[in-house]
Amino acid sequence: MDHMPAAEEAPRAPGRPRSLRVDEAIISATLDLLAEGTSVEVLSIEAIATRAGVGKATIYRRWPGKEALLHDALATLKHPGDEVAGESVRADLITLLSQVGPANHDPRFAKIMPCIVPHLMRSEEHYQAYQDIIEPRRNRVREVLRRGVENGELRADLDIELVLAMLIGPILVQRVLRWHPDLDADKMPEQVIDVLMAGIAPQ
Amino acid sequence: MDHMPAAEEAPRAPGRPRSLRVDEAIISATLDLLAEGTSVEVLSIEAIATRAGVGKATIYRRWPGKEALLHDALATLKHPGDEVAGESVRADLITLLSQVGPANHDPRFAKIMPCIVPHLMRSEEHYQAYQDIIEPRRNRVREVLRRGVENGELRADLDIELVLAMLIGPILVQRVLRWHPDLDADKMPEQVIDVLMAGIAPQ
Repeated sequence: MDHMPAAEEAPRAPGRPRSLRVDEAIISATLDLLAEGTSVEVLSIEAIATRAGVGKATIYRRWPGKEALLHDALATLKHPGDEVAGESVRADLITLLSQVGPANHDPRFAKIMPCIVPHLMRSEEHYQAYQDIIEPRRNRVREVLRRGVENGELRADLDIELVLAMLIGPILVQRVLRWHPDLDADKMPEQVIDVLMAGIAPQ
Repeated sequence: MDHMPAAEEAPRAPGRPRSLRVDEAIISATLDLLAEGTSVEVLSIEAIATRAGVGKATIYRRWPGKEALLHDALATLKHPGDEVAGESVRADLITLLSQVGPANHDPRFAKIMPCIVPHLMRSEEHYQAYQDIIEPRRNRVREVLRRGVENGELRADLDIELVLAMLIGPILVQRVLRWHPDLDADKMPEQVIDVLMAGIAPQ
């Protein structure tokens, strides 16, 4: 096969280092292929190399194999989480929940993530690698919840892990799965928090 | 290709009509192939026929094509929803939420559903067909919530559609995506309802 390594042979642009541009091209090619429906099983270093316009050896110099590249590619789809203002628990939770789902609303996220899940489930190693990607985002929400328990904005006996799932779950199914045709994922962070704060039983 | 139509040529067993057994064999073959990682794009009537041990014509006599067969196959994975006892809103919601996810805990559900979603999203027609499958289950929860509003067990100003997502979303992400390693999807129905009833703000 005669791969023309376009990204590597392009004249060096000022600004970003060439190696970083090559990394980005490889990761973007991986995400493109997955978003277009290539399954993880079918996805090959060769197809990624062709799509990125680099040689296979260029990829193998950077990643030991498909799994490692896949892990780094998926990590770029996850929003790292903005700093929160630290004002009220309600305002900080709205900030964090507005980031549930794709980083920068990358449209490839919704196409890739559901389909990658069965693959991640197939081994504890993959599952753990994915947990490592999302855990820092969960921690931001946990910190705000713990602060709320400490300063009295939230109940003292709060089950942090359960409430975490109750905050993120409804928004995740709506943003990633478009679960309900009439709900608006952009409005849900505020709506979910207000209902959860007050509860649904009459006071 | 020489397909030996095993399911059709088997001697007629007493009890279930033969045509029903053939239907079930075809649907089960479809689900098996999807659960094993065949994408919807790659899935073919020929592969389904081979797996089910029937001829392609047998399938085409029952379904006009792959999409119609896929729809019926997915519908079998969804629990139709048990009758609720109609005692308390809390008890009825626990009953209904315990059914979120796979019918009879069919292990193929968790493998198939996430991966099928991007396919369902690709056209309004597919999305609507899937909505038609899950809407009757949502309606059961809506009915219990409306009863709660009417009899005073729930707040009068309840946003039914939002609360629906807040009840189902956390359990769905846990059961289908195994979102959080430490949460137990079987215990979540009761846990989610109790937290949501009382709210997380101090009273």
